[in-house]
Amino acid sequence: MRLVSLLTDFGLTDYYVGAVRGTLLRLGGDPPPMLADLTHDVPPGDVEHAAHVLAAAVPSFSPQTIHLAVVDPGVGTDRHILAAEGPLGRFVAPDNGLLHHLLDDLTVHRVARTELFLDVPGATFHGRDRFAPVAAALARGETLASLGPPLEDPVRLPISPPTRTGDDQAGVAVGRVAHVDRYGNLVTDLPHGWIPEGARAVLTVAGRAVEHWVRCYDELPRGEAGALVGSQGTVEASLPGASLAEAWGIARGAEAVLRWSR
Amino acid sequence: MRLVSLLTDFGLTDYYVGAVRGTLLRLGGDPPPMLADLTHDVPPGDVEHAAHVLAAAVPSFSPQTIHLAVVDPGVGTDRHILAAEGPLGRFVAPDNGLLHHLLDDLTVHRVARTELFLDVPGATFHGRDRFAPVAAALARGETLASLGPPLEDPVRLPISPPTRTGDDQAGVAVGRVAHVDRYGNLVTDLPHGWIPEGARAVLTVAGRAVEHWVRCYDELPRGEAGALVGSQGTVEASLPGASLAEAWGIARGAEAVLRWSR
Amino acid sequence: MRLVSLLTDFGLTDYYVGAVRGTLLRLGGDPPPMLADLTHDVPPGDVEHAAHVLAAAVPSFSPQTIHLAVVDPGVGTDRHILAAEGPLGRFVAPDNGLLHHLLDDLTVHRVARTELFLDVPGATFHGRDRFAPVAAALARGETLASLGPPLEDPVRLPISPPTRTGDDQAGVAVGRVAHVDRYGNLVTDLPHGWIPEGARAVLTVAGRAVEHWVRCYDELPRGEAGALVGSQGTVEASLPGASLAEAWGIARGAEAVLRWSR
Repeated sequence: MRLVSLLTDFGLTDYYVGAVRGTLLRLGGDPPPMLADLTHDVPPGDVEHAAHVLAAAVPSFSPQTIHLAVVDPGVGTDRHILAAEGPLGRFVAPDNGLLHHLLDDLTVHRVARTELFLDVPGATFHGRDRFAPVAAALARGETLASLGPPLEDPVRLPISPPTRTGDDQAGVAVGRVAHVDRYGNLVTDLPHGWIPEGARAVLTVAGRAVEHWVRCYDELPRGEAGALVGSQGTVEASLPGASLAEAWGIARGAEAVLRWSR
Repeated sequence: MRLVSLLTDFGLTDYYVGAVRGTLLRLGGDPPPMLADLTHDVPPGDVEHAAHVLAAAVPSFSPQTIHLAVVDPGVGTDRHILAAEGPLGRFVAPDNGLLHHLLDDLTVHRVARTELFLDVPGATFHGRDRFAPVAAALARGETLASLGPPLEDPVRLPISPPTRTGDDQAGVAVGRVAHVDRYGNLVTDLPHGWIPEGARAVLTVAGRAVEHWVRCYDELPRGEAGALVGSQGTVEASLPGASLAEAWGIARGAEAVLRWSR
Repeated sequence: MRLVSLLTDFGLTDYYVGAVRGTLLRLGGDPPPMLADLTHDVPPGDVEHAAHVLAAAVPSFSPQTIHLAVVDPGVGTDRHILAAEGPLGRFVAPDNGLLHHLLDDLTVHRVARTELFLDVPGATFHGRDRFAPVAAALARGETLASLGPPLEDPVRLPISPPTRTGDDQAGVAVGRVAHVDRYGNLVTDLPHGWIPEGARAVLTVAGRAVEHWVRCYDELPRGEAGALVGSQGTVEASLPGASLAEAWGIARGAEAVLRWSR
C-alpha cells in the first residue's frame, strides 16, 4: 500500500484540490496510491500555520507515507521544490519553511528533474503541474536521490525554539503561542515535560496568568481559562466553550512563559 | 474490502482529522482500510446533530462498514467508549447519546482493552488516542466481545419519539423538528407513512401551518413554504431558495404537528 | 483500479455527501471503486459554477475515471439524467448544462434503466437514489448503451464562446469572466494563445484596463492588479493578497476584452 497525504491552502470550493488529486492518481503508479487529506483550509499563504499542522499530523501516519504539502505564495518564482525523507516519512514541499519543524530529522534534496513537470501554460498552479508529479514519482518508487541533488540549507521559519532556565526547585521557560486552533485554544511550544514532577506551575500568555491546571476541557468551569497538556505534548491554554484567543485578543506568536517552584 | 466511515466535530482546518485518518491507516491492518467521511463539520459538541447525521447516512453503507463517530465534549472524563454492532454495521463512539437513533438494533459493549489506547501525554484527543485505535482493531478483524463487556444501559438523548392518535379518517401526530439542514429545511421526525393514503394533511411547525404539499423543491413557488416527503422518509418543511429555519426563526426541537382528515 | 470523482453542491455539514459515498461504495462492485472529491461546495444550485469546476478538473484525471456531478435544482422534476463518455472520461449528471464545456467531445445517453434507481420514498435526494446507483453501474462495468438511448440535444448553458477578430499585427478578442475563484481572481474564457507572440496586449474587464502582465502572483506589487496566464490556459486578472472581484465589484459574466498590437 502506498499512501500520499495532502496539505494545501487551496480551499475546497474550487477545482484546485480535485486537480491535484487527479494528477496524483493518474501519475502515481498502478494501482494508484491511496490519498488522505490533512487539510486544505490553511489560511491562504500562511506557511507557519501549515508547518505546524503538518508537523502535528505526521507522527500519526505510517513512515511509508508520502506527505505532499503545498502552501506556496512564491509559486512561479525560482524558490526550490524540496523532496525530503526521514524516520517519519517522505515529503514534497516548497522551500519556504513549510518543513521547518521536521527539518532536523530530514535529508533534503532539491528537485531538479524538470522533465517530471507537466508541460502546460501558466505558472500559477505548481501544485498540479510540479509538486503532484514529483510526489507521484516517489509513489511510483523513484528514489529521493534520483530527483535532484542534496540541499544543505533549506529555508527555515524565523522563529526560535523555547528556552528553559532554573532547576527542579524553581525555574522559568520562555516560548510562544505556536498555534491557535479552530476552538481558539492557545497551543504553546512549551513541552509539558519541562515542568518538574510535583512542582506548582503558572502559565502566562501575553502577560495574563493561568493558574488553574486541568486534565481535560470538561473539568474547566464555564468562563474560566485553564492550562492543560495538549495533544502534541505541549502546554496549552483554553476557555471552555469559547475562544480564548478571541476573549483575550491573543494571536500566534504571543509570548508564553511557564514558571514553576516547589 | 474493509471500510471505516468518519464523523467528527473536528472541522477541516486543523490537524485533528488528519491525525485520526493517519492512525486508522497505520493501525487498521495491511492493506489498510478504505476511509470515507460522513462529515467533520458537526457544530462543536452538538451530540444530537451528530446522532441525526450518523443515523441518516448509515443505511447507505454496506453493513460491513465500521462507523467511527467522535463528538465528545466529555473527552478525558470517565464516560465510556462504546463498540457496537447490528444489522446496519459496526460502530465506535463515546457513550453520550451519539448512537441514540440506532441503539434499538445494536449490541453494545464498553471498551475495556485499555492496552489498545495510545500511550501519549494529554487527555484532550481521544479521537486519535483511543477511538481510532479501537476502530482500527475492529478493522483488523478483532471481535466486539474481545474489546470489553456488554453494556446494558448506554446513554440516550433526552428526546421522545413522535406519537400518533386517531385513525384513517382523521388523526393527529405530534413530533419535533429533528434536524435543520444546511439549506434551512425543517426535517421532522414524523414518518410520511403515518398520513393515510388519500387524506388531506396539514403540517404545523411551531404554530405555523404549511398546507401546500409538493413532491420536490422545484414545484414550490418562490417565497412560499411547502411540505414534502424528505430523503429520510419523514415529513419536512421547506422554503424554495431560502432558509425556512431563518425566515421563521425556528430551531431544532420545535414542535411539529401533522393533522389529517378525509 | 476504478475511480469515481464527486462534485456536488451538498456542502460538507450534512449527511448528504456521506450517503452518496456510501451508496457508491455499496453498489460500485467488489472491490468498491476509489472515490475522489472534486468539490462539494458549489454554491447551491449554481450549475454554471459547477460546469466550470468540472471542466477544469477533469483533464487531470485518468480517462478511465467516472465523474459523478450533481448540482440539480430540478431534482424530482422530469429533467433527464445523463450518462456520457468521451476521450476525457465518463460522466453522470443532470441534463441542465452541467456538462456544457465538455459536450462537444461527448457521446450522451439518457438514463432509462429506472430499475437501477433506489426504491425509496421522497423525491428530493436523487444524488443518492438515482445518480449514485447509475455511476455505480458504470463502475461495475455496465456500458453507456445499456443505460438508455442516445440523446441528441442535451441542455447547454446560455453562454457564448469568446470571439477573436484582427490579425497578428492588431486585434481584439471579446469574452467574459467565466469564473471567480476563491481568491477573487477573475478567470476569463480568453485563451492566452490568442495573443500573438511578441504583441503588446491590454486586458479590459468590465471597462477597467489591466496593462501589467506578470508570470505569477508574486511578481505583482501590492495593491496593483495584473494580468497573467492562468492554470487553465486562459487569461486572468488578479490583485495580490486581495480579491479583485470584490475590489472592483465584478462578478462572473462581466465582459472581458483583449486588445493587442505591435
